[in-house]
Amino acid sequence: MTSSERLSVAIVGGSGYAGGEFLRLALAHPNLHVTQVTSERNAGSPVHFVHPNLRGLCNLKFRKMADLEAADVVVLALPHGSAAGKIAQFEGLGKTIIDLSADFRIKDPALYQQYYGEAHPAPERLSEWVYGNPELHREELVGATRIACAGCFATSVILALYPLLKLGVVLGKDIIATGLVGSSAAGASSTDASHHPEREGSLRVYKPVGHRHTAEAQQELPGNFPLHLTAISTPRVRGILTTAHVWVPDGYSERDVWSAYREVYGDEPFIRIVKVGKGIHRYPDPKLLDGTNFCDIGFEMDNDSGRVVLMSAIDNLVKGTAGHAMQSLNIARGWEERTGLGFAGLHPA
Amino acid sequence: MTSSERLSVAIVGGSGYAGGEFLRLALAHPNLHVTQVTSERNAGSPVHFVHPNLRGLCNLKFRKMADLEAADVVVLALPHGSAAGKIAQFEGLGKTIIDLSADFRIKDPALYQQYYGEAHPAPERLSEWVYGNPELHREELVGATRIACAGCFATSVILALYPLLKLGVVLGKDIIATGLVGSSAAGASSTDASHHPEREGSLRVYKPVGHRHTAEAQQELPGNFPLHLTAISTPRVRGILTTAHVWVPDGYSERDVWSAYREVYGDEPFIRIVKVGKGIHRYPDPKLLDGTNFCDIGFEMDNDSGRVVLMSAIDNLVKGTAGHAMQSLNIARGWEERTGLGFAGLHPA
Amino acid sequence: MTSSERLSVAIVGGSGYAGGEFLRLALAHPNLHVTQVTSERNAGSPVHFVHPNLRGLCNLKFRKMADLEAADVVVLALPHGSAAGKIAQFEGLGKTIIDLSADFRIKDPALYQQYYGEAHPAPERLSEWVYGNPELHREELVGATRIACAGCFATSVILALYPLLKLGVVLGKDIIATGLVGSSAAGASSTDASHHPEREGSLRVYKPVGHRHTAEAQQELPGNFPLHLTAISTPRVRGILTTAHVWVPDGYSERDVWSAYREVYGDEPFIRIVKVGKGIHRYPDPKLLDGTNFCDIGFEMDNDSGRVVLMSAIDNLVKGTAGHAMQSLNIARGWEERTGLGFAGLHPA
Amino acid sequence: MTSSERLSVAIVGGSGYAGGEFLRLALAHPNLHVTQVTSERNAGSPVHFVHPNLRGLCNLKFRKMADLEAADVVVLALPHGSAAGKIAQFEGLGKTIIDLSADFRIKDPALYQQYYGEAHPAPERLSEWVYGNPELHREELVGATRIACAGCFATSVILALYPLLKLGVVLGKDIIATGLVGSSAAGASSTDASHHPEREGSLRVYKPVGHRHTAEAQQELPGNFPLHLTAISTPRVRGILTTAHVWVPDGYSERDVWSAYREVYGDEPFIRIVKVGKGIHRYPDPKLLDGTNFCDIGFEMDNDSGRVVLMSAIDNLVKGTAGHAMQSLNIARGWEERTGLGFAGLHPA
Repeated sequence: MTSSERLSVAIVGGSGYAGGEFLRLALAHPNLHVTQVTSERNAGSPVHFVHPNLRGLCNLKFRKMADLEAADVVVLALPHGSAAGKIAQFEGLGKTIIDLSADFRIKDPALYQQYYGEAHPAPERLSEWVYGNPELHREELVGATRIACAGCFATSVILALYPLLKLGVVLGKDIIATGLVGSSAAGASSTDASHHPEREGSLRVYKPVGHRHTAEAQQELPGNFPLHLTAISTPRVRGILTTAHVWVPDGYSERDVWSAYREVYGDEPFIRIVKVGKGIHRYPDPKLLDGTNFCDIGFEMDNDSGRVVLMSAIDNLVKGTAGHAMQSLNIARGWEERTGLGFAGLHPA
Repeated sequence: MTSSERLSVAIVGGSGYAGGEFLRLALAHPNLHVTQVTSERNAGSPVHFVHPNLRGLCNLKFRKMADLEAADVVVLALPHGSAAGKIAQFEGLGKTIIDLSADFRIKDPALYQQYYGEAHPAPERLSEWVYGNPELHREELVGATRIACAGCFATSVILALYPLLKLGVVLGKDIIATGLVGSSAAGASSTDASHHPEREGSLRVYKPVGHRHTAEAQQELPGNFPLHLTAISTPRVRGILTTAHVWVPDGYSERDVWSAYREVYGDEPFIRIVKVGKGIHRYPDPKLLDGTNFCDIGFEMDNDSGRVVLMSAIDNLVKGTAGHAMQSLNIARGWEERTGLGFAGLHPA
Repeated sequence: MTSSERLSVAIVGGSGYAGGEFLRLALAHPNLHVTQVTSERNAGSPVHFVHPNLRGLCNLKFRKMADLEAADVVVLALPHGSAAGKIAQFEGLGKTIIDLSADFRIKDPALYQQYYGEAHPAPERLSEWVYGNPELHREELVGATRIACAGCFATSVILALYPLLKLGVVLGKDIIATGLVGSSAAGASSTDASHHPEREGSLRVYKPVGHRHTAEAQQELPGNFPLHLTAISTPRVRGILTTAHVWVPDGYSERDVWSAYREVYGDEPFIRIVKVGKGIHRYPDPKLLDGTNFCDIGFEMDNDSGRVVLMSAIDNLVKGTAGHAMQSLNIARGWEERTGLGFAGLHPA
Repeated sequence: MTSSERLSVAIVGGSGYAGGEFLRLALAHPNLHVTQVTSERNAGSPVHFVHPNLRGLCNLKFRKMADLEAADVVVLALPHGSAAGKIAQFEGLGKTIIDLSADFRIKDPALYQQYYGEAHPAPERLSEWVYGNPELHREELVGATRIACAGCFATSVILALYPLLKLGVVLGKDIIATGLVGSSAAGASSTDASHHPEREGSLRVYKPVGHRHTAEAQQELPGNFPLHLTAISTPRVRGILTTAHVWVPDGYSERDVWSAYREVYGDEPFIRIVKVGKGIHRYPDPKLLDGTNFCDIGFEMDNDSGRVVLMSAIDNLVKGTAGHAMQSLNIARGWEERTGLGFAGLHPA
């Protein structure tokens, strides 16, 4: 577990956006070398046929899942519900398993069933998995070999709300959180809804109530608040901007909110507090985060009402998926936590 | 006041987006003919130099405000705070005055001062003006000669919430409303923030608390609810999508919400309830409304919590500004209410 | 054939973008009433389920082609190659037939075969059809009952080049024309290429050589020049911007080009010459034309080389398809040519 | 000049997009440490106030040019015409000077004057500078201390055309090259033309004739062909897609073109030939190159006419500016050529 180790990686379900993004990050990671990428549909094709950004950077071809061989790290990037049922099969391939799907995120099988509509296929395994949110679970991640990566919208909600809820200063009102989400969150398969002439420029409320990530947020956030998530698709490809509204007691000041976020996130390598009094970059904006592992967090107080508007921005495919998976793996293996995640993002972009 | 009358129109401040949009609508209106358009900065230039869509359709040149002559209808499209101080001057020009700014919307001078930061320059005139929201003030608009057009974000909030609040079925919790707003809402002057490389693709919370349109919404909506508005700029040019969250009593069903909207808006020519169970156009989307005077309204119930998510979409420059000004004028003069507002909108667009 | 006549319209293949756009225009046309719209896939569904802009404006439901009844005007909006084979069947339905596809545009069956890859199914009928470009064929269109609407890219190329070629002032070099095309040109069916995360923001050369509209342009343009078309897809939904390069003799001046365009297009209701020395709207831009029937044309001279850069912009679905179909029908029936085509376009948009 | 050396860098004019991009790259470069960044307007402000992507990654503040101190590498990112007049001053600061402007690109003062409209302020220095295009001038760059970085549009034109022109197989016809350019190419200052509501979605021919980069292309490309450049702005922020048309002799085949590009660019680390027979990524697309130093090149043959359509895509701020500056510096100092330029680009994006 030294920084000179080099682990082999197999990415299962590597033609989708989550798997492709983990592949991109892994190719540039000094402690990893990717040896296998699967895609049932594209088996035999070069990886860069599907992920054109990797042309010249990756000579692998997709293989079928049936042809998987052993690897140190097995990354599962399958549709929700696909990994849990055959988890034993993947455990036979490698020691460390990272699941990018929702299959092992929820610890309570009943909560899983409520939001995913069916009984969990392997409830006895749920306790083996660490929820892959480094900010909340860093200690558990050290040495972990089963990492269930947090959902993207859930991550933006959890990271925005966690400090104030953890510190117990939020009044007991309903919490409304609204996520503005890019089109990549719906995956790599084209649909009538993703057809460019229909989707370009649209603002669609696609999940006004009952978003599945509510389960994760409820599980991870202290205080058992009634939490209401609304998801709206935007014309962006990547990125989530979340706003959430909480109420704090009389006398709780803007300075106190600053202190709370600094106390909880002060040393976090990928969290930045963005709250600037002037200029054009006053609050978090996902536009600036494409390709990065940052979660930018901002806030504003309505002194008349005691309401605090919290804001967070992430790249849904990086800090929302493959990036915090990599960050979690870095922690698990004892590598420097930022390894392979140094991209600053572009300005302008 | 018959349908064959033809009124002359002077647009004061016609180089901005609001004035330009009223001009576009007025040029195609059978009962209006535009005779004057002012712009201090562009005086002497053809109108189509600033509004290139009107090339070949309007031969007017901008003149200075000092050169204004009498007109039947005077449309004020000036920056907020400019019209009220010299209203007597404009009253000397014509019988009917339509103000597109915020100057005469708020009936309570104290509320005006709270949100606009200074004392109202002509508080004694406020009672003369009708708030130009046809759905709420149709009867007052008949014969009106002073019309203060409603704000764009306020319109989207008011129209979404009005039926349930009017019927008194909303529980007494805070109401959170979030508006996703296009870049045209910030006006026609370029700034660092509007520079394309910075603005394109951005999602910026630009008014998390204290939005001025809160004053209008509080004035117009029944029930005196604590109402919290958050405005976020999106990559679109036109359009507002607003979501708002209210709670209804146990047993109040989706069918009841349908009934409420039908009861209040059943005969409205420019309100459409959009709530479809399948397909890709299930809820309101401003993408479909560019150039139209429609306000599309949708909703969804969270049966577990009694929360209702209300949604409304408008074109901020039409139903949010120039279009409902025209609709109000149609009502005021007794013309068919849809005159000049027949554009269906484009699909795809 | 007076302006008070009202003709019934059947749109065959009305769930696509071309048919939907003709439907939108026909609904607002005082001399037309649409009685039938077909879609095999959506038969039984309300028309506004597919064309959400028409919600509240059209109560028709899609029917199957097999259920078509007689109509005064039959508009064929079928995929290329579908109409020609069963044209006799459509002729039995109504007196006037407008075909929006490529089936009857090319007069020379050999040229058709060269570009469309198969023998024309009804070559003996080709001479019955008028090429639906009003600027070049207005006289033939008067009284016409068979109108083959011009292709969208072809229209932008033809209208840009026609005056100089007609006047015989172009030197005999190859002509390069490049079209920047919106995503709606590829139709209403989603594909891997139209998936929003892949398509948004892309600039793709999709037809560098061999574009089928070359056949139309060669047929319509005088002089038999070698004409080379390259088509590039852009992030817009609608619109085509075409640039084309020709060489004129020494001494032929910018003023001469102005004269040429004025001479040929001086009275055209839908052609505007856009060439302004200052400001931000100096040349044609499809952004300003969404929903309009205008073709804006501009040019610039390179005095050193005698090269003239011609530019044209249209909305591919209006002036490129349904709009000039309507314009052609207006001419055919003797109605005022602009009837139903008065939309000015939006600024900003 | 070993790989462990660490040079200090001063960026002069670091609040613009070119300087900001070089700063981003330099911060991640193992052989560089940035010690100074100037901005007259922003002196005293943190660098990340202007370049928000660098928040947490760069603690420098802008200083005034007058406060510059010595540095190993001085990078000039000033407006065109600013560096040449005071070059002696900058030479006093450091040994290696990289100019990102056009001031030292053109070797022939007469050509400079023709395109830039005034006499060159330091013509005697022009011969000291190497044109910073690594593919054409790699050998001259080794050990160079004066590097004049190539223009962005020029780079895309030169790299697309160079192999066929170098090999002397192009017939002597005019060459038309069309560049589709993002909004960042116009710089960081807002203007009426860059105002988001005006610019978003627009396709504007902004330089139909007389583009200044013609001078660079003429200087660098063999054969003295008449070369005509047309530049069109697109809705993208970054990126250039260039198409150019040349004619080859009868019998010159697609395979021959492949061979030509492989022969000339076979070992180039940042050139990729993109020409795929199927799928959605068949040709170069700037969408895939944001943030990368790649120049993707493709082509297609029109066998009927012997025309070859060449295509190239770059990120104008990286391979078009700061990236090939860094690549040139790597070569000059003997560092591995790809150092600091490893970003793969995002998919989707």
